[in-house]
Amino acid sequence: VSNKLPKGFIINGVHCGLAKDRKKNDLALFYSQAPCSAAGMFTKNKVKAAPVILSMSVLKKNSSRYRAIVVNSKNANACTGNRGIADAKKMCSLAAKGLGVANTSVFAASTGVIGKYMDMGKISSGISEAAALINRKTVNISKAVNAIMTTDTFPKIVPRTFMIGAKEVKIWGCAKGAGMIHPDMAPPHATLLSFILTDALVSSKAMNRALGEAVKYSFNCVSVDGDTSTNDTCLLLANGLAGNRIIGVSGDDFRIFLKNLMAVTKDLAVMIARDGEGATKLVTIKMRNAKNYDNARAMAAAVATSPLVKTALFGKDANWGRILAACGRSHVAFEPSKTEIRIGNITVARKGLSVRFSESSAKKYLKNKEIEITVNLNCGNYDLDYFTCDLSFDYISINADYRS
Amino acid sequence: VSNKLPKGFIINGVHCGLAKDRKKNDLALFYSQAPCSAAGMFTKNKVKAAPVILSMSVLKKNSSRYRAIVVNSKNANACTGNRGIADAKKMCSLAAKGLGVANTSVFAASTGVIGKYMDMGKISSGISEAAALINRKTVNISKAVNAIMTTDTFPKIVPRTFMIGAKEVKIWGCAKGAGMIHPDMAPPHATLLSFILTDALVSSKAMNRALGEAVKYSFNCVSVDGDTSTNDTCLLLANGLAGNRIIGVSGDDFRIFLKNLMAVTKDLAVMIARDGEGATKLVTIKMRNAKNYDNARAMAAAVATSPLVKTALFGKDANWGRILAACGRSHVAFEPSKTEIRIGNITVARKGLSVRFSESSAKKYLKNKEIEITVNLNCGNYDLDYFTCDLSFDYISINADYRS
Repeated sequence: VSNKLPKGFIINGVHCGLAKDRKKNDLALFYSQAPCSAAGMFTKNKVKAAPVILSMSVLKKNSSRYRAIVVNSKNANACTGNRGIADAKKMCSLAAKGLGVANTSVFAASTGVIGKYMDMGKISSGISEAAALINRKTVNISKAVNAIMTTDTFPKIVPRTFMIGAKEVKIWGCAKGAGMIHPDMAPPHATLLSFILTDALVSSKAMNRALGEAVKYSFNCVSVDGDTSTNDTCLLLANGLAGNRIIGVSGDDFRIFLKNLMAVTKDLAVMIARDGEGATKLVTIKMRNAKNYDNARAMAAAVATSPLVKTALFGKDANWGRILAACGRSHVAFEPSKTEIRIGNITVARKGLSVRFSESSAKKYLKNKEIEITVNLNCGNYDLDYFTCDLSFDYISINADYRS
Repeated sequence: VSNKLPKGFIINGVHCGLAKDRKKNDLALFYSQAPCSAAGMFTKNKVKAAPVILSMSVLKKNSSRYRAIVVNSKNANACTGNRGIADAKKMCSLAAKGLGVANTSVFAASTGVIGKYMDMGKISSGISEAAALINRKTVNISKAVNAIMTTDTFPKIVPRTFMIGAKEVKIWGCAKGAGMIHPDMAPPHATLLSFILTDALVSSKAMNRALGEAVKYSFNCVSVDGDTSTNDTCLLLANGLAGNRIIGVSGDDFRIFLKNLMAVTKDLAVMIARDGEGATKLVTIKMRNAKNYDNARAMAAAVATSPLVKTALFGKDANWGRILAACGRSHVAFEPSKTEIRIGNITVARKGLSVRFSESSAKKYLKNKEIEITVNLNCGNYDLDYFTCDLSFDYISINADYRS
């Protein structure tokens, strides 16, 4: 799939020793041969990891000279104080030196255990090795994406190609995340990591607006376990090498760019929910006829984070009372007596009340790997899809001893 | 323990057939031979069960003529619309008739499956049977308390005896609740059910104030799974038969009454956390030096509802980074760099940073059935204890197929 990367981007990953398994990569570099504009969204968690703090300041200082992202797994570099900040800076400067670019043109991102200092010896040799590969123009998408995975069971990559005027433009996105997934990102402020590369020529303002919209309906609408990470980071780099006419904040070109960016981020968000720790099924919560985005999202999040709803879905139990109860505890004003709930195409509650339905059909439907739950509030005309997964025995196994 | 009931109260429970297991009681009556004052706290969930709606209106209509509580398990009578309300009313009128008291002197409460209509035939014969026992003055505490249990593994009863002036006064409380436990109750507005009986003579205003305070630091500070029920109800009945001088809203008598009531509700809350569905340990989160109650509670609740924290505790893993990350996503302003975290007596983080500690000592400590986690925020002088439990494989087993 290396021909799917937008023009001018080279990415690769190595094993530097943070991961015990030698086949697991743990350090990646994302590099652009030409300077990029950037937009970023970062976690709103009050506890922000060092690379998040650093990348937020890098994004402020500079607007169109970005060249690279250096990222590691296995250590979140969070709750590591000044030493953590210094380590994140060192990662950037090592990457900058290895690639022959300016320190301030490099973003850092990390994911893994919280509260542990970085092993900078390993990081340093990993960056050298990865930079050498990139300097030889060696692209290895699967190694790069493997390096950012933690409990992920499959790599998450979405490439798109489309036209702006007569020019072919590409957007390529990757993401990691399976646990501690409940992104709540704000500009310039997700351990969701997502790096999106494009060769489109697009104004800074348009990039920020497009990324904000895309994250709002994708990463900010996915939850595995309700735990918002200290490290969530989504970065969009655009190097303009497609040679298209510049995309501004409005017009058809913006709409086409936004549509494709949203397709990338939404597909990645769905992949994250599908790969949720221990998940046996992807669950889409379709909020219908809500009053507005905030209400729809808050209620969907309450349903998506309800252990009772999630275990019922794991048990293939059409326990719609738990769904309505979760809506009720979301602190959103709504009228239970107007609410209709469907599991797949089976209406299980109407006007907030039980309706007759075939339990066996519902159970059969709930055996699918992909489930849709529709909550029609009938109190507005705002529709929102929210992505989550069930809660299984494996979630407990995975997380009862993650550090060791 | 029947001699521990306050003067004038008779309680009993029967099996009326809602439960499949014939040894499991499913209907109870709590009766006072003399009229009572009452105070009540009910769920703030927007979806309120029929008996909650009804009991809230009963509490409004009348102030010192209360005589009984009728309560069933196995069916929550929630999301049952007008028919549910009529059924709840019928429960009250049947109990009133059986006991020879006024309809408006009886409260109803239910717990169990949401969205199912009540089997009023069974309920009706159960009420008759229980009323007959009570009319024969037959007290059976364990049968009454057994009748309100669902996934509870042990009955939760706390009796207190103390002096008001020269008079001996009793407060006796019971509670049920093991899942869907994250009470958020407000006056006159928890499926926590708790019924507290006292023979104290106490003014209505004093009862409301005392119950509000008691619930604030007990039931509203306990979470098993973060799911606030549609049925949470806490009722306090006081019949004055102790013959004490009346307890008003201030003074030493009020303080003594409040202290004892708080001891009852706190002990019940701790029992609920200890008996959380699938729980292997009771976890007390000690928030120290917070700014205020709301901040302390919100942060403690974020920690207590974090699946990552709960699974780590189940795994005996001193993963304090997850604790701090949960604090960070609580939307409460605090300074991570001032925060100290202790697991038992072992300091695991200071100034928001990792400190050296013995992982083996921490693991050993975490094998205990009772764990204390102290989060010292160093940003105020408000202390609050919050009660929860770990998240185990059994939670999944219990809830993956609760309805059948």
